[in-house]
Amino acid sequence: MDNLKVFFNSHDLSYRNPFGAVVCGSKVFFRIYGSIYDEINLELYYGDEKKEKISMEKCGEYFSIEVKFEKPQILWYYFSLKQGETYSFYGNNQQGLGGIGEFYYSNPKPYQITVYEDFKIPSWYKEGIIYQIFVDSFNNGFDSPLNPKNNSFIYGNWYDDPMYIKDSSGNIIRWAFYGGNLQGVIEKLSYLKSLGVTAIYLNPIFEASSVHKYDTGDYLKIDPMFGDEDKFQELCLKAMEKGIRIILDGVFSHTGDDSVYFNKYGSYPSVGAYESSESLYYSWYRFKTYPEDYECWWGVKSLPNVNELEQSYMDFIINSKNSVVNKWLKLGASGWRLDVADELPDDFIKAFKKKIKEVKEDSVLIGEVWEDASNKISYGERREYLLGRELDSVMNYPFRNLTLDFLRGYIEAEEFSKKVMSLLENYPKEVFYGNMNLLGTHDTERLLTIFKDYTEDETYVIALLKLATLLQMTFPGVPSIYYGDEAGLTGGKDPFNRKAYPWNRENKDMMHWYRLITSIRSSYAVFKKGELKLHMAPSFILCYERIYEDERAIVILNRSFNASCELEINLVSFNGEFENLLCKENKKEKIHSESGILKISIGPLQGKVLIGTAFHLKRSHKN
Amino acid sequence: MDNLKVFFNSHDLSYRNPFGAVVCGSKVFFRIYGSIYDEINLELYYGDEKKEKISMEKCGEYFSIEVKFEKPQILWYYFSLKQGETYSFYGNNQQGLGGIGEFYYSNPKPYQITVYEDFKIPSWYKEGIIYQIFVDSFNNGFDSPLNPKNNSFIYGNWYDDPMYIKDSSGNIIRWAFYGGNLQGVIEKLSYLKSLGVTAIYLNPIFEASSVHKYDTGDYLKIDPMFGDEDKFQELCLKAMEKGIRIILDGVFSHTGDDSVYFNKYGSYPSVGAYESSESLYYSWYRFKTYPEDYECWWGVKSLPNVNELEQSYMDFIINSKNSVVNKWLKLGASGWRLDVADELPDDFIKAFKKKIKEVKEDSVLIGEVWEDASNKISYGERREYLLGRELDSVMNYPFRNLTLDFLRGYIEAEEFSKKVMSLLENYPKEVFYGNMNLLGTHDTERLLTIFKDYTEDETYVIALLKLATLLQMTFPGVPSIYYGDEAGLTGGKDPFNRKAYPWNRENKDMMHWYRLITSIRSSYAVFKKGELKLHMAPSFILCYERIYEDERAIVILNRSFNASCELEINLVSFNGEFENLLCKENKKEKIHSESGILKISIGPLQGKVLIGTAFHLKRSHKN
Repeated sequence: MDNLKVFFNSHDLSYRNPFGAVVCGSKVFFRIYGSIYDEINLELYYGDEKKEKISMEKCGEYFSIEVKFEKPQILWYYFSLKQGETYSFYGNNQQGLGGIGEFYYSNPKPYQITVYEDFKIPSWYKEGIIYQIFVDSFNNGFDSPLNPKNNSFIYGNWYDDPMYIKDSSGNIIRWAFYGGNLQGVIEKLSYLKSLGVTAIYLNPIFEASSVHKYDTGDYLKIDPMFGDEDKFQELCLKAMEKGIRIILDGVFSHTGDDSVYFNKYGSYPSVGAYESSESLYYSWYRFKTYPEDYECWWGVKSLPNVNELEQSYMDFIINSKNSVVNKWLKLGASGWRLDVADELPDDFIKAFKKKIKEVKEDSVLIGEVWEDASNKISYGERREYLLGRELDSVMNYPFRNLTLDFLRGYIEAEEFSKKVMSLLENYPKEVFYGNMNLLGTHDTERLLTIFKDYTEDETYVIALLKLATLLQMTFPGVPSIYYGDEAGLTGGKDPFNRKAYPWNRENKDMMHWYRLITSIRSSYAVFKKGELKLHMAPSFILCYERIYEDERAIVILNRSFNASCELEINLVSFNGEFENLLCKENKKEKIHSESGILKISIGPLQGKVLIGTAFHLKRSHKN
Repeated sequence: MDNLKVFFNSHDLSYRNPFGAVVCGSKVFFRIYGSIYDEINLELYYGDEKKEKISMEKCGEYFSIEVKFEKPQILWYYFSLKQGETYSFYGNNQQGLGGIGEFYYSNPKPYQITVYEDFKIPSWYKEGIIYQIFVDSFNNGFDSPLNPKNNSFIYGNWYDDPMYIKDSSGNIIRWAFYGGNLQGVIEKLSYLKSLGVTAIYLNPIFEASSVHKYDTGDYLKIDPMFGDEDKFQELCLKAMEKGIRIILDGVFSHTGDDSVYFNKYGSYPSVGAYESSESLYYSWYRFKTYPEDYECWWGVKSLPNVNELEQSYMDFIINSKNSVVNKWLKLGASGWRLDVADELPDDFIKAFKKKIKEVKEDSVLIGEVWEDASNKISYGERREYLLGRELDSVMNYPFRNLTLDFLRGYIEAEEFSKKVMSLLENYPKEVFYGNMNLLGTHDTERLLTIFKDYTEDETYVIALLKLATLLQMTFPGVPSIYYGDEAGLTGGKDPFNRKAYPWNRENKDMMHWYRLITSIRSSYAVFKKGELKLHMAPSFILCYERIYEDERAIVILNRSFNASCELEINLVSFNGEFENLLCKENKKEKIHSESGILKISIGPLQGKVLIGTAFHLKRSHKN
């Protein structure tokens, strides 16, 4: 009721302009409807806790103000409303998703504005397709595994089920390996190119005891089971020849306890922090009682945490001439993914970012963040990942959750749209369009398994998987394929999601599908760079438009197992011919939009990707 | 005190003649001293529970009688003594070890006589040296393991520590393999020949899921990780060319639950007993409630017990033209070792023995029995292993225990001698001299580990190991070397005693020692065939003589870490020159016996092997 007296919509340019995150120095225009009020103030809270109350100017039934934001930070706002002697508020909706807000008597929920320093994500990344490789499980380029570790196991067969070998307390007591390596990746570069891949994100490849290598033993050495420096360089070169970049996984919040630096078991000739308080590396770690009681990652004793901001650590990893960052970029890497970014101090990430851009201007920095990275609070602090001096891109787990939740009917299309709009509003546009849109990683259950757990009917499973990946390939953000998903690999949580790639046992239908949708992604700039516009549709249907220059695309996904639907999509005066790219060659589906309206039917579990050509362009093309 | 009034010694030919086990139809003379008694009876209990009381004939202070034994069986005797109206007894000593007995007022302990059907153990076996090979751990004849099983592990390195991968209940959930195979054995035949080996006992090689293969899957197929029929035949042929025979391990008390016959998991195309009560194999097993509740080996669900005497099983294993026994003997095997012989019915073993001798006259049958096999009671029945129609030889675990117990000071030389004499008395002579004298197997801790656990001093450990193996190589019975013992392999109980053979990392000193003592064994008939005579010596010294035709050998072992000893050994009128075979070439030790007495000194932890040549032979040799 009170909403009728006061109204604001952060997604509507007539209320907030520009939309979304803004670059430092931008002016933002705020306008709120509220004819009954005597006074309306814009109340701003800055990330640095400064507070400001700005009186808005009344103009007819509206109050408005323009504010200039200089400093990069996350800030928050709501409106205080004065009517006679009564104060009340208008703020964000309860979910905090932006858009149309709510009237509050007290404690209004604020809207977010992200103010960031402008930056560009390299286009090779932003317009590419990523392929994530867990090296041990991907491909062995030799007849037998390279340099197996002492007291380790090799799976008897490449196709064996993954397994952790644990003692009765659940500790892993011996590591099992498939024996994949960098040579194996090199041998599959042509395959990856044929799949449209332009960047490979490698899970960690530096020497470590485990199969996953998040327990770094030596930051300066390729794990001998994977190869060596020369092989890494060869991989980078050969990949680049095919237009494929290599992104490394950097694990800088902790090391292995059996590392060069901690050296708990004396495996290295170095003097480790555990061995002597005179160790060069002593200051890297946080000992409570030396040497047995030390801080470690999530309480895992084998992963001692490091003091990331300790000068000698910063020098070793980032600053020095032969730093870790320098070394691997110079050998050919094109970027880094930062493991557990929320456990790395902002200053560490900033220094890291600065360095990689110095060494290689078009390198990229991706962070592992599981939530909305624009406003994440970790360890009690609001993080500054996306303000321009930290991450270029984040692993878009929210995208994954929304996609899977929508397709499984856990959320409706409306909620999907609202949450997408929230990310769109909060993230710098560059980040939203440069997000790493994943549907699975080494840390999640495999896509196929998720759908298999959801429905027993194999036909539905495949259809849902196709809808999910279709969404991924047509959405803003950089699609990232987790190795083997395209071949029909299944697997639950770690280690089952790290099964070996099923060479010669690929699911051909799936492979064909992935080739089709990656080629669509690669062939149309609209999917790489187009603006996103979400359309209203029934709850079980997602419908969105991508717009880039003259290109228009409409994507429609129907998650229902049995409902068809006729949609009328308002294209706002765009008239042209649309062609469904998912039809077989001999069955082309062409539809015209008339008076800016596109009428289209969509069947159960069907997806359509319509590429539109305006009539006037069509005509000129014909000439 | 009463002993003085009555006396009998089963080891003294003037009291019992002949000594020891006798062939059916033999007459045995019994004589007992007992001047104060009016009457003495020989009381006999037959294995078939018949009882007989035979009045002995008085002649001066002695009573005597001669009895003829017709039927093969174990029988028992003691003497009942009558003095006036009082009855008392003279029986075996409390330990039941034979030799000098004891006076009893009641419940005398009986002496044993083994009456057996005469049989010959093939001389290739009796005079040979066995080498036991656990195939997976011995040698891989290829670059990588052959046909790894689904969902199995291969050790990352040949030298990795063995490990069982168990669930929290202790069940093995995945098998790990080194990848040894028959080709690997073939490649090491020359090595084995150089070690003096004349027979290889292979742990099971038929298809099975486990690494140990005691869970037979298919009795008619070589495990694909080990090779195939052709490879087996090649092994037998190539071994035979080097004078080496192959002995197989037969596991006939149970099968694997995933076998052709039980087929619990449908791994084979057959219809298994578990799958249908119409199965050809249904009658082989013992179901309590079909199909889940079935009898199994020691309660291990994965090893269902078989009805060995079931006709179709007997036919399959033994009788039919293409029986298991037939097949493998014809392909080249020279004998079988019967796993858990005490769980096989006598009639099964008898049929088995009969068959193998029919197929191959000089084949050999060895039983796994852990105790004195002449009188073992298993499952409430006295067993007939050694009565001529069953085993040729048994795995001589008593020998192992006595040797290790003596050398570690757990028993004194006197007890060693008494227990050896007991075996000598109870076993058919052919068996005693054809026993498989092992010091370690796949079921025991390794020799080296046992001594390492006993003393920390490496020098002592090696010295003790040398004494143990010296005893083994100079004692009656067929020495059996457990693969890798000769190379210094260590390891506790299963699976640690199944570590891979340390190719290129052999302990050279140990290798040299084994070559020396096996060459001594091979070079002197006296060690293969010579009679055994135990000599009295201090408790920490073992001294025994071997006598064969003109050859004499004296072996002396001093287990003391610090005591030396001067011994005078009564050779009963043998005069000649003795040479210690363990001296280095340039330091020959020669000693003469004078008036039948050999004076010899022995240092701490020293062993001597003296080969004697009678003076008259020496002279004639010189001519």
